[in-house]
Amino acid sequence: MKEDIDLTEHCISSATLAEGEMLTAKRDEVRLPDGSEGYREYVLHPGAVVIVPLLPNGNLVLEKQFRYPLHQTFIELPAGKIDPEEDVLLTGQRELLEETGYVASDWVKLGIQHPCIGYSNEVIHIYLATGLKAGQHALDDGEFLEVFDVGFDACLDMVQHGEITDSKTITALFLAEKYLANING
Amino acid sequence: MKEDIDLTEHCISSATLAEGEMLTAKRDEVRLPDGSEGYREYVLHPGAVVIVPLLPNGNLVLEKQFRYPLHQTFIELPAGKIDPEEDVLLTGQRELLEETGYVASDWVKLGIQHPCIGYSNEVIHIYLATGLKAGQHALDDGEFLEVFDVGFDACLDMVQHGEITDSKTITALFLAEKYLANING
Repeated sequence: MKEDIDLTEHCISSATLAEGEMLTAKRDEVRLPDGSEGYREYVLHPGAVVIVPLLPNGNLVLEKQFRYPLHQTFIELPAGKIDPEEDVLLTGQRELLEETGYVASDWVKLGIQHPCIGYSNEVIHIYLATGLKAGQHALDDGEFLEVFDVGFDACLDMVQHGEITDSKTITALFLAEKYLANING
Repeated sequence: MKEDIDLTEHCISSATLAEGEMLTAKRDEVRLPDGSEGYREYVLHPGAVVIVPLLPNGNLVLEKQFRYPLHQTFIELPAGKIDPEEDVLLTGQRELLEETGYVASDWVKLGIQHPCIGYSNEVIHIYLATGLKAGQHALDDGEFLEVFDVGFDACLDMVQHGEITDSKTITALFLAEKYLANING
């Protein structure tokens, strides 16, 4: 990699384009690396957690959920937004329980991913959850989903065959596959 | 997987929350699977293409780019938005040339990913590009980036070590790794 050049874009002024119930859209005037000015538009997001719940039999707990922006049902790992002031690990534990009914005894942070760096400040924290025990799930209002489980290799095949296209799910599977390959020698 | 239940959410009415130069934010009133009503807010996106440019020496062509929503420089694969009416493969060829200066003789579609299914309708098409020849790049106005290349395994390590966190880059590497492992036996 060659000598770093400064690619930083500096905020001149920031305006709110829209403030919805869930989405806030911003439009900032920025100074670009060559000294010229431009605009950047983006969405504010509180961050989220995605969980790779690995059952004792080696299967992963997945969900099937209708995603309105794409008018399509997706196969995803459990995930959810971080509540204000909430510890990230607690978000993971809360969402896993709420969405799937499972409680996990062991949590390993696998990393983070940024789903949409062009127009969102969202960061997604990725956890592997093992030592799963079934409990009682409790969905949020307006949340509808199906829970099922599939073998780990079958999940990887579903990515390769285009049955799983959700970015948080694919990146979490990527990191989990490498992590498990490392610890299993 | 148990018997499918209908998770579809139906549009009752659609409103534009904000219309920026780049972003359009929508707020739709929807009928939920249990018959109740709710709102869904999301961003419209024309779709994009991400390219895995594999050099004859086995290295991948990467970029370093400042992404304003996160005020951070990212390591990414070349990518860009689909122009109106543009064929997706042409988007890939155009963006690879504009951003990196490379022309590729062989293009294989590896699949698609959805970066942000909760609040964007964006779909990203993923291509592997080989038979690369250096040409002349030409960045868009307001676009600043550095181009460099790194070995394939080193790229995978950068994901594992959190140096690459961009979702389109990670999902494209995931699919390329599996594809190349299959064709190389």
